[in-house]
Amino acid sequence: MKNTFGHDLAVTLFGESHGPAVGAVLDGLAPGIAVDESLIESRLALRRPFGTISTARREPDDFQIVSGVYEGYTTGTPLCILIPNADVQSGDYAKNRTLARPGHADYAAYCKYHGYEDYRGGGHFSGRLTAALVAAGAIVISALSKKGVLIGTHIKSCGGVADRAFADIPADIAELNGKRFAVLDEEKGALMRHAIEEAAADGDSVGGVLETAVYGLPAGVGEPWFDTVEGMLAHALFSIPAVKGVQFGAGFDMADSRGSLFNDSFFMEEGQVKTASNNNGGVNGGLTNGMPLLFRCAVKPTPSIAKKQSTVDFIHGKEATISLNGRHDPAIVHRARVVVDSITGLVMGDLLTGCFGSDYLGGD
Amino acid sequence: MKNTFGHDLAVTLFGESHGPAVGAVLDGLAPGIAVDESLIESRLALRRPFGTISTARREPDDFQIVSGVYEGYTTGTPLCILIPNADVQSGDYAKNRTLARPGHADYAAYCKYHGYEDYRGGGHFSGRLTAALVAAGAIVISALSKKGVLIGTHIKSCGGVADRAFADIPADIAELNGKRFAVLDEEKGALMRHAIEEAAADGDSVGGVLETAVYGLPAGVGEPWFDTVEGMLAHALFSIPAVKGVQFGAGFDMADSRGSLFNDSFFMEEGQVKTASNNNGGVNGGLTNGMPLLFRCAVKPTPSIAKKQSTVDFIHGKEATISLNGRHDPAIVHRARVVVDSITGLVMGDLLTGCFGSDYLGGD
Amino acid sequence: MKNTFGHDLAVTLFGESHGPAVGAVLDGLAPGIAVDESLIESRLALRRPFGTISTARREPDDFQIVSGVYEGYTTGTPLCILIPNADVQSGDYAKNRTLARPGHADYAAYCKYHGYEDYRGGGHFSGRLTAALVAAGAIVISALSKKGVLIGTHIKSCGGVADRAFADIPADIAELNGKRFAVLDEEKGALMRHAIEEAAADGDSVGGVLETAVYGLPAGVGEPWFDTVEGMLAHALFSIPAVKGVQFGAGFDMADSRGSLFNDSFFMEEGQVKTASNNNGGVNGGLTNGMPLLFRCAVKPTPSIAKKQSTVDFIHGKEATISLNGRHDPAIVHRARVVVDSITGLVMGDLLTGCFGSDYLGGD
Amino acid sequence: MKNTFGHDLAVTLFGESHGPAVGAVLDGLAPGIAVDESLIESRLALRRPFGTISTARREPDDFQIVSGVYEGYTTGTPLCILIPNADVQSGDYAKNRTLARPGHADYAAYCKYHGYEDYRGGGHFSGRLTAALVAAGAIVISALSKKGVLIGTHIKSCGGVADRAFADIPADIAELNGKRFAVLDEEKGALMRHAIEEAAADGDSVGGVLETAVYGLPAGVGEPWFDTVEGMLAHALFSIPAVKGVQFGAGFDMADSRGSLFNDSFFMEEGQVKTASNNNGGVNGGLTNGMPLLFRCAVKPTPSIAKKQSTVDFIHGKEATISLNGRHDPAIVHRARVVVDSITGLVMGDLLTGCFGSDYLGGD
Repeated sequence: MKNTFGHDLAVTLFGESHGPAVGAVLDGLAPGIAVDESLIESRLALRRPFGTISTARREPDDFQIVSGVYEGYTTGTPLCILIPNADVQSGDYAKNRTLARPGHADYAAYCKYHGYEDYRGGGHFSGRLTAALVAAGAIVISALSKKGVLIGTHIKSCGGVADRAFADIPADIAELNGKRFAVLDEEKGALMRHAIEEAAADGDSVGGVLETAVYGLPAGVGEPWFDTVEGMLAHALFSIPAVKGVQFGAGFDMADSRGSLFNDSFFMEEGQVKTASNNNGGVNGGLTNGMPLLFRCAVKPTPSIAKKQSTVDFIHGKEATISLNGRHDPAIVHRARVVVDSITGLVMGDLLTGCFGSDYLGGD
Repeated sequence: MKNTFGHDLAVTLFGESHGPAVGAVLDGLAPGIAVDESLIESRLALRRPFGTISTARREPDDFQIVSGVYEGYTTGTPLCILIPNADVQSGDYAKNRTLARPGHADYAAYCKYHGYEDYRGGGHFSGRLTAALVAAGAIVISALSKKGVLIGTHIKSCGGVADRAFADIPADIAELNGKRFAVLDEEKGALMRHAIEEAAADGDSVGGVLETAVYGLPAGVGEPWFDTVEGMLAHALFSIPAVKGVQFGAGFDMADSRGSLFNDSFFMEEGQVKTASNNNGGVNGGLTNGMPLLFRCAVKPTPSIAKKQSTVDFIHGKEATISLNGRHDPAIVHRARVVVDSITGLVMGDLLTGCFGSDYLGGD
Repeated sequence: MKNTFGHDLAVTLFGESHGPAVGAVLDGLAPGIAVDESLIESRLALRRPFGTISTARREPDDFQIVSGVYEGYTTGTPLCILIPNADVQSGDYAKNRTLARPGHADYAAYCKYHGYEDYRGGGHFSGRLTAALVAAGAIVISALSKKGVLIGTHIKSCGGVADRAFADIPADIAELNGKRFAVLDEEKGALMRHAIEEAAADGDSVGGVLETAVYGLPAGVGEPWFDTVEGMLAHALFSIPAVKGVQFGAGFDMADSRGSLFNDSFFMEEGQVKTASNNNGGVNGGLTNGMPLLFRCAVKPTPSIAKKQSTVDFIHGKEATISLNGRHDPAIVHRARVVVDSITGLVMGDLLTGCFGSDYLGGD
Repeated sequence: MKNTFGHDLAVTLFGESHGPAVGAVLDGLAPGIAVDESLIESRLALRRPFGTISTARREPDDFQIVSGVYEGYTTGTPLCILIPNADVQSGDYAKNRTLARPGHADYAAYCKYHGYEDYRGGGHFSGRLTAALVAAGAIVISALSKKGVLIGTHIKSCGGVADRAFADIPADIAELNGKRFAVLDEEKGALMRHAIEEAAADGDSVGGVLETAVYGLPAGVGEPWFDTVEGMLAHALFSIPAVKGVQFGAGFDMADSRGSLFNDSFFMEEGQVKTASNNNGGVNGGLTNGMPLLFRCAVKPTPSIAKKQSTVDFIHGKEATISLNGRHDPAIVHRARVVVDSITGLVMGDLLTGCFGSDYLGGD
């Protein structure tokens, strides 16, 4: 079940960038979750390109809920959400069909699908499919928030500029969720946007690091093997095109240090067990420990760039050069952020449904 | 199916550190894979503690294959491998039963299992269970090598010392697989061991980074969503106690750079499509691209340290201090390396079995 | 993953009878399977009501392939097929919303979904969803036939009339697949239709037994535990509303006999191992044995009948009577037949893909 | 995950008849279930051959719980139970290695495993593996009974003799669970045993029908597609060697009748919704409806018989005859009964854990 993820709350993804539509089926949703279409719209808006730092492709992201909702509430049966593709220009892609765009899946897809793949706009590999994840995730995130579980992501770094760390997490999350360019320090955000524009002007692109916090999870969620909180999240997060690394808490920084410095010592606060630091990112032994979940995703620079690159014509087996003059994003880190939130919501929804039963997310 | 991982070749893990045994069931193995018990022994030996840089617990790791092998070959039915626990000293653990060891899962496990967990030696959370993964992995790694798929891991960094990069990958893998302390540059290895001993002398511990190469994979293995090569590997790798980050290719370094610098341009070599660099770690769009798979795991410093730490008695809800005077590893990065190899073998075996069918790994 | 079935070729089903559409996602299809839309149409036509022996609801079953097909061939990525609901009359259902129709899921669904279920026309429980299975199955059945695997189902008995047994199976299958009322003996079919019309005239309904043959399977497909050919098929077949029994070969008749009479003795024919009888229905120990697969499904009489029945108002907790005057089928056995074929195709496609790899069904 | 069954409570089965042991891993068990080893022993005793109506192979069924239990309670981590094989005589089997025993899997297994299968005593296909299911099931059945869910099976028919129907189900279940030859009417039981002895005297065997009741399930358990209560149970039940048919409620009898006769009309009793008859076997639309679950399994006559049978030498491709003079059961229906109970318990445990969460079965 390759394009399906989750055990008790599962998402199945389908669609191609230039086909009729992309979409997702959410299975295992509790009955009785209020479905607010304007919320889904606003979440999709966060993923859409905007301004001078994004592709010129403009999809309205009109979505249709095809099943699983009746009179404004989830029914408990599979919810299928469909997002038609509207603003499709396949010409550029057909021209380059035989050329492997560096950093893209064209060649690997050709090897896997033997030429039958719908290559237009990246086909099934396109970031376009994340729109369906965002729509599906919006419903779950909304249900989680009624349980006190809050999710937010900021651009931790981009173009050599670093945002401030999470501080008051619930407040920070609330602030981030209203922003299209999600930073905690707006001055740093302006510098990041400037760096993106500079890269665009050079016919180039930049990457970035996203940092996510999940607040309000009970302790003891997850499994020791193999469905650790870390493993389940990483599995799904690596689906996001361009994510090349995932780390929890201090992650790779811990690897270079000593236990006495990075062990999170415990203390009591108002009858609750807490840790003085959170280098483990809220996870011990694969389980939540009651502290906020904290993790980062490395987003590589968008591989589609205008600069001329060396490549191959993989059908004719010869070398070539390529310049991508279509509508491309000089960065996607700011758009990927709501995708990370959405996947996080789906995974948390799955784990909590497994713990507390199939009605859990629908309770009041 | 929490403690089971894999689709077409699945591993189920069971056991507790101080229970009768740990073990694994491998399901989906092709019939006709030669099972070399001395190879399993030698792989288990790589995981065992040794010298002054490891715990004093010494398990012989006598294993028993309980099913799935007949006359030296896999039968194609589930292979259960059992490793009895021998050198068990539970006294220390009972004394500290109510105290949350910082960086460990004691408190989280208590929240999840409500006090019914077998807490002795970390119970089901213990790194001891990785012995079963190593034994199971040895069989798959051996079958993969007959298909030309080679796996090797080195300690990329530890205690502030960095090993050299992979160069001639097949040769490097062959070299690493014979070493107990797996580095490519022995001088650097000596410095690392010294750093570990220093930490041990301080009652402290160190972490490290492991880097793995998989050579010989065909292009086109993996799925775009959700069972990307990256996602499948990361899911399983995060089960390894102490792994807090996983990145592919240049990983987090890509996030701070530009597309023109990190896109891997393609070229032809002897009729084969190759990339000039390998910043994507052999994966594009979730699929192998024919280049070696390259990834890194961040291993945190062993949380069990002799230094006094602040903590809580989570049963009585009060603060406390703890000093861990049992038999502990000042570093586990060198022992975790063979676990990373094993998990990699299991995941690659699963993906390739899915691609090429249930007899694939058993062919000659 | 409740509404998803299959390992290597999986189908996910969604939709409600009176919602916007029903549909299915097929994941794991090989790339390069020719998709013939007219074939899908003709298979859907076999499921549609017709004549005086079916409901008056007439759905055109216009379907849309939303993803996974490009230029007439499967791409290898998820194929989503959507069938809009057109001829919807929800009035009758709203009137009876609080009454449990005997033999239907209304009350059980209310208990499960707490009143949030879309009850109109049976909602997600409606036989309407089988249209999506038929459309999906058509693609797989077509691919299987190119591998020499043929599937056909006849009405073994209905209204007290029995059809003749399978004889020349490939010829019988070819004949059945052209018929809307699938019997091998047309005279018996006329008697069955007469019995259905009689029941309809009485405001009543009849059931029937479907018998399916699968010809051309290699020996050795399936698993000993739990994914036996029998178990996989039965799991999926029991999803068909009204199926209350599944048996293989001589099934329940074997239970009353002796081993010497029902063991299928082996013999050689043109170098092939065959059995003299086929009481085991082509399955030994959960695996195909090279003989045709033979099984039967018991289809209960349609529970929606015009006759007055005792029931309860489950919302107000009181007794009531109900007469179902909507558009109902006096029998569905003749319509269920193509659903059985379709599910059989999906399950065989899954098992064979697991055996022979992800490209298998797409090969020439 | 072929040899694993279940979503939230999963069982993995391993072992061969003449290998070191058979066993099972139960994953997803709630923490805090009391594990009574004497209960497991008594359930295993019900499966063991006895008297003159069973094979002379006598296994003590000494089992060992290898993991997942601490101080008498489940820990919530995987429970592995191991049952060593003791009374093994492989000689007879080696002699007949190349001959396909009619009704057995030898030939199909050879096709699947290419000769690598452990053929001794049926290997992984042996009914011996059901001992592990019985041991695992005993733990779950015990936990279910504390929730008011009771499971019992009787021999509905054997050798042409029919037992009486279930009447007072809780009382009948209690009575059955104390019997080795589980019938409700002892006189009928004596006749059945006589029929078995007669078949044995003829060098022949008989089959039978098992009927199971599950009492105390809440309404609304199960899924409409594909994980219906019927489908989940049938999937697992068809693993039992010799089960060739599964039907719910009136099953195949419904197929020959009319809706007005077999619809179960609803009524109120003490504020509860009930049905006047139970032809649907407690399931509507795949979900429990609050009435007792009722189903039957067709068990074919034991295929191992002393009578001479025609067969083939499948390795040398020639015809042969075979007489099975080993230790065989003239009937297994009475031994299969506790296996049906056990699988039923495992499936119910899985479905209820999915509904009510991972702690459900462990609550007091």
